[in-house]
Amino acid sequence: MSGWLRVVGLGPAGAEWRTPEVADALADAQHIVGYHTYLRRISPPAGATLHGSDNGDELARARHALELTQGGARVVVVSGGDAGVFGMAAAVFEALEGGPPGWRELDVRVLPAVTAMLAAAARLGAPLGHDFCALNLSDNLKPWATIERRLALAAQADFVLALYNPASQARSEQARLAFEVLRQHRAPSAIVAFASSVGRADEELHITTLGEADATRADMRTLILVGSSSTRRIERPGTLPWIYTPRGSRAV
Amino acid sequence: MSGWLRVVGLGPAGAEWRTPEVADALADAQHIVGYHTYLRRISPPAGATLHGSDNGDELARARHALELTQGGARVVVVSGGDAGVFGMAAAVFEALEGGPPGWRELDVRVLPAVTAMLAAAARLGAPLGHDFCALNLSDNLKPWATIERRLALAAQADFVLALYNPASQARSEQARLAFEVLRQHRAPSAIVAFASSVGRADEELHITTLGEADATRADMRTLILVGSSSTRRIERPGTLPWIYTPRGSRAV
Repeated sequence: MSGWLRVVGLGPAGAEWRTPEVADALADAQHIVGYHTYLRRISPPAGATLHGSDNGDELARARHALELTQGGARVVVVSGGDAGVFGMAAAVFEALEGGPPGWRELDVRVLPAVTAMLAAAARLGAPLGHDFCALNLSDNLKPWATIERRLALAAQADFVLALYNPASQARSEQARLAFEVLRQHRAPSAIVAFASSVGRADEELHITTLGEADATRADMRTLILVGSSSTRRIERPGTLPWIYTPRGSRAV
Repeated sequence: MSGWLRVVGLGPAGAEWRTPEVADALADAQHIVGYHTYLRRISPPAGATLHGSDNGDELARARHALELTQGGARVVVVSGGDAGVFGMAAAVFEALEGGPPGWRELDVRVLPAVTAMLAAAARLGAPLGHDFCALNLSDNLKPWATIERRLALAAQADFVLALYNPASQARSEQARLAFEVLRQHRAPSAIVAFASSVGRADEELHITTLGEADATRADMRTLILVGSSSTRRIERPGTLPWIYTPRGSRAV
């Protein structure tokens, strides 16, 4: 039995941000399992079988991949960005924990990748240059009250915030509600950036303030960054400012 | 004037975790600027000049790179991991903001990379599968009271925590003090992992609990991960358990 499972991140966009380790795993795969949208981003090796599924089927997709691995196949599960950050890796371990004991002896590895906030930050300057939090704004799998509490405490701690999944086709209110919570704890002058489809043809960047931020700019392609009280703008002629968070920090 | 500056992350270890974009920038560089330890990890192109400096010289290093770029050269500044996360990117923008106005018109780009916590998480399972914070435990550039306040609030919010720079040759008390703060707000059963030199020959992983965590395990090669109340262990025969944080979350 020589099967293996690699849970990989494709990075936020094209092959220039994909690690060689992930590219090699894809090239060796017999089965590639993932959300349709991510499968369209890769060039599978000849003979590999693609198993595309819809968003929301994560546990079933993970079980299917583990079954194929148990059967002796070389299997890759793909996520966008990094599989360990709001991606398929947690779903694979949930499936593995709940599955037959033999699954615990399979050759399973997670391969790290560039997650969306790092690509967005790089395009904007260095907003994650100091302590930060990453929050998933989707309340599909957790109570909205938990999200509000985390936003409030993170704002009080003066972390930079990276907000993943601020909106989807089914959800549009989360970004607006999140800004309402943050406005209770942070100055209206706090820097806010919307980064959409970073690294892809439809990339859009927008820099504003918490006081002026319009939540309707966020859709399912968007990552929102909210600066700390130290995050600064560097104006530049004829283009967007840089934003960055200095390495040092005042007392909070 | 055709100079450019690329601020790049080498990833946490070898070339298998380095993006093609970063590899291309290094291959085109005339000058490569960085901490000695990171310069030793690359194979510079023929004819490139290496400018190594000691840890702690970040602003001077950044100014030197900007001066070389202003002079028309193709310059790469390297960090370990991702340059935007506790790396050189913030130092470059600090230098740029304080420098001559002409620096704002230079062709500067940050190239994203895999940061240490993503590689550590991948080795351990999926501990960053749900909301998390990244904190730099070095108090070289911020008051220790700020770090304690952030630890306490992040623990109350039940974030997973990635603790960067828990110790250095000059600092050994920070990890111990951080665990003391966390023990006031989190259960002794909370999962703690020490991940050292991930991806390198001297890689070491250790999984324990907050109640039992021994801060002296941390040195300058170590990243510490502290699970949320949801983070779980999956025992495996004959090897370390997997640890992962489920995608959903209870109310906190």
